[in-house]
Amino acid sequence: MSKKGLVKRSEDFSKWYNELVSKADLAEHSDVRGCMIIKPYGYAIWEKIKEQLDHMFKDTGHQNAYFPLFIPKSYLSKEADHVEGFAKECAVVTHYRLKNADDGQGVVVDPEAKLEEELIVRPTSETIIWNTYKKWIQSYRDLPILVNQWANVVRWEMRTRLFLRTAEFLWQEGHTAHATKQEAIDETEQMLNVYADFVENHMAIPVLKGIKSANERFAGAEETYCIEALMQDGKALQAGTSHFLGQNFAKAFDVKFADKDGEQRHVWATSWGVSTRLMGALIMTHSDDLGLVLPPKLAPIQVVIVPIYKNQEQLDAISEKANSILLSLKTAGITAKFDDDDSKKPGWKFAEYEMKGVPIRIAIGPRDLENSTVELARRDDLSKESVAIDHLVDHVQQTLTDMQTKLYEKAKEFTHRNTRTANNIEELKAILDEDGGFVEGYWNGDAETEQKIKDLTKATIRCIPLGDHAKGECILTGDEEAQKVVFARAY
Amino acid sequence: MSKKGLVKRSEDFSKWYNELVSKADLAEHSDVRGCMIIKPYGYAIWEKIKEQLDHMFKDTGHQNAYFPLFIPKSYLSKEADHVEGFAKECAVVTHYRLKNADDGQGVVVDPEAKLEEELIVRPTSETIIWNTYKKWIQSYRDLPILVNQWANVVRWEMRTRLFLRTAEFLWQEGHTAHATKQEAIDETEQMLNVYADFVENHMAIPVLKGIKSANERFAGAEETYCIEALMQDGKALQAGTSHFLGQNFAKAFDVKFADKDGEQRHVWATSWGVSTRLMGALIMTHSDDLGLVLPPKLAPIQVVIVPIYKNQEQLDAISEKANSILLSLKTAGITAKFDDDDSKKPGWKFAEYEMKGVPIRIAIGPRDLENSTVELARRDDLSKESVAIDHLVDHVQQTLTDMQTKLYEKAKEFTHRNTRTANNIEELKAILDEDGGFVEGYWNGDAETEQKIKDLTKATIRCIPLGDHAKGECILTGDEEAQKVVFARAY
Repeated sequence: MSKKGLVKRSEDFSKWYNELVSKADLAEHSDVRGCMIIKPYGYAIWEKIKEQLDHMFKDTGHQNAYFPLFIPKSYLSKEADHVEGFAKECAVVTHYRLKNADDGQGVVVDPEAKLEEELIVRPTSETIIWNTYKKWIQSYRDLPILVNQWANVVRWEMRTRLFLRTAEFLWQEGHTAHATKQEAIDETEQMLNVYADFVENHMAIPVLKGIKSANERFAGAEETYCIEALMQDGKALQAGTSHFLGQNFAKAFDVKFADKDGEQRHVWATSWGVSTRLMGALIMTHSDDLGLVLPPKLAPIQVVIVPIYKNQEQLDAISEKANSILLSLKTAGITAKFDDDDSKKPGWKFAEYEMKGVPIRIAIGPRDLENSTVELARRDDLSKESVAIDHLVDHVQQTLTDMQTKLYEKAKEFTHRNTRTANNIEELKAILDEDGGFVEGYWNGDAETEQKIKDLTKATIRCIPLGDHAKGECILTGDEEAQKVVFARAY
Repeated sequence: MSKKGLVKRSEDFSKWYNELVSKADLAEHSDVRGCMIIKPYGYAIWEKIKEQLDHMFKDTGHQNAYFPLFIPKSYLSKEADHVEGFAKECAVVTHYRLKNADDGQGVVVDPEAKLEEELIVRPTSETIIWNTYKKWIQSYRDLPILVNQWANVVRWEMRTRLFLRTAEFLWQEGHTAHATKQEAIDETEQMLNVYADFVENHMAIPVLKGIKSANERFAGAEETYCIEALMQDGKALQAGTSHFLGQNFAKAFDVKFADKDGEQRHVWATSWGVSTRLMGALIMTHSDDLGLVLPPKLAPIQVVIVPIYKNQEQLDAISEKANSILLSLKTAGITAKFDDDDSKKPGWKFAEYEMKGVPIRIAIGPRDLENSTVELARRDDLSKESVAIDHLVDHVQQTLTDMQTKLYEKAKEFTHRNTRTANNIEELKAILDEDGGFVEGYWNGDAETEQKIKDLTKATIRCIPLGDHAKGECILTGDEEAQKVVFARAY
């Protein structure tokens, strides 16, 4: 497999992304339209994301469960906005059997095995889950229900990009049921904060928290909260959403509970999700022209040790030292690998681990052995230093912590530098064309205005920032008392 | 939710199973034919299974990856036996869009969105994976590939039972590629041993290791290794399989590698899997008429503390002590819960935790506080004892270890007691009708004989036990030099 370099980000960001995903062995397109194959190295990063998020969900009282892959067609229709949002892009199962073709060539669909009602491969699970909650909820004692599901979902996308937009993707979807409106809103906000915490402190990606405009809301939600991140090319990416569903699904599926006074009331709902799209955000926030850059918390290998040697004797001596370092690193909870593959040169290995974003590379040569030192190289700033083996574990620990912080700060600084203000539509357009980034401005709250701005600039309202109640003149209409929003072109 | 008792196993084992699955909150049927909902408590057990198995896979050098849910219909046909085995029970996606019905009532399949080639929801992933491996493998340096996938699969079963046989189920499927036949056979056997190790030492279920007869082989395999366990009703359950696939899929998908001499050779393959079926094995091996019995290693809650009190003052005093115990248990790595729910009586809680198979129940009343003791009840033998709080953590630790061992020994003893020998077909039938269990006998190796025995007794050859090369007279034909096999009626 050729491991030659990547096209530069400044030349062709989109091509750079595709090459990186391929050369860092993260994922590839399958022969099945729109479906991706997540390769072992990419999946190992996704596993870290899952594991750390799952821990945070459990710490906030949630439990995992599993619901069916298939949704009867009629269920989708029960919530009017929901079906409108999802019917146009779904995989439909119509038959349950194949048979041998009459001409003896392969198999064909058996027309006698037609389903009475078609099944939809879940694009999201609100309908099948609320149909189930109906059976689980009778009284206020059965509430709240705090359930999450890790699953695959399918949305038939016509234009796909690895991790960012694929027909099948992996995600988690939380679905909670509450006795009161306030409790459901609190849950929606709590999960937005969990997402923001994870994305900022584990993925080292700064986010903007906000609320979606009505146009951009989840199909079936009363309010969609989101976190938005800014990629290196100045485009925004929605990294996670948390929906307050009101009583929409409870009403569609007739889910009521008896309150303490024996009164029958509809249940309040939330749902929230993040997906393998986060992998795209991770790549496009930190990586550089040499390849992937990973925050240490998500790196499948945090430290790689590469021996530099001319003969077997030297390799043996280095291996002994390397294995002892490996053991001390492991004991300290650091994931490390010693790459003594004799069929690859050190230079090839250096390039390979740079491409794969391994945070720290340790090189050990005969001279190092004599001096009881190693050469430590950081992936983020590409700096190198000589470190005494006696202090190595502590130093690695500190470097990993420092790298986690620095990556976040660098991205934060980038986002800050690329957040501008537009006072009118011309300014907005000029900023987007010249620099991209987040653009703050005012909007009169009207869906038609929003659409016109989108048509004129290709930018959408990413969100109404949480807690920012500033008012001003609408950038399109000049209406006063318009609300502060953030515009951007987006993935 | 009514938590009344279960029907007795001796009265109606099948009903007992269904009631237990429901009342212990493990799973339920969904409205989607054949698809189950795994409830949070059931899923928590499955998560333990996953986590522990995943660890064992990684310890033996495997990595996880993810392949598409959908398989083009033509791929299934490429391996002749494979399509024969799976075509008759698969979910077929034929369209990718719904549209509003002309009568305004709901949505219908959009006939214009018909797929050129139908997609099959994966019943197993050999075909899509070997189509991918073709791109990954060029040289011997690319081998071995040791990949596993955790996924959902669909096989359209007409008669379903929760965990044991469902249209959609969760599983893992390992798919490995090797340069030599011997290496692939070694891998197949290694994974059988990993499964046996897990099922025996984590699930506390003794297994019989063996090889399937040609009839019972996986569709596309050259040899299927299996582990078979005996349930309390005397029926066998296949708990896991590991397949040596020879070069069948490599040839079907034309996957070759250049060996060290530059010679092009077909790759050798294995695949191996266990599924949510293991949950059924777990339930039917250990549980009793009071509910679920869980081996401590798989219990989501290992210890529950129940306060016995008459007033708030007593509860406060008990809570203080209970929380301190909780903390010491957690520190020792034991999962514990303090159930101070004031709306439920202790008796109700006792029954509830017995139903859910929590290994140890600790009750604390005012008298216990005075004496610095607690009452400790074991779920497996229902014994109770008074334990000094000072020694509680150690005692709990020992009890959990002891329970893990005892459950295994009890099941082992049961399997031993229910393994009999038949010298002819009448004996086989008599044993199966009277006692069930495993029955050892000789078989001439002929598929027709196997089928006749099945027709006469409803028993199948569960396996040819590994390493047992005893010879004798075929129980049906009397042929000499027949091989030793194990018969049983099975799930």
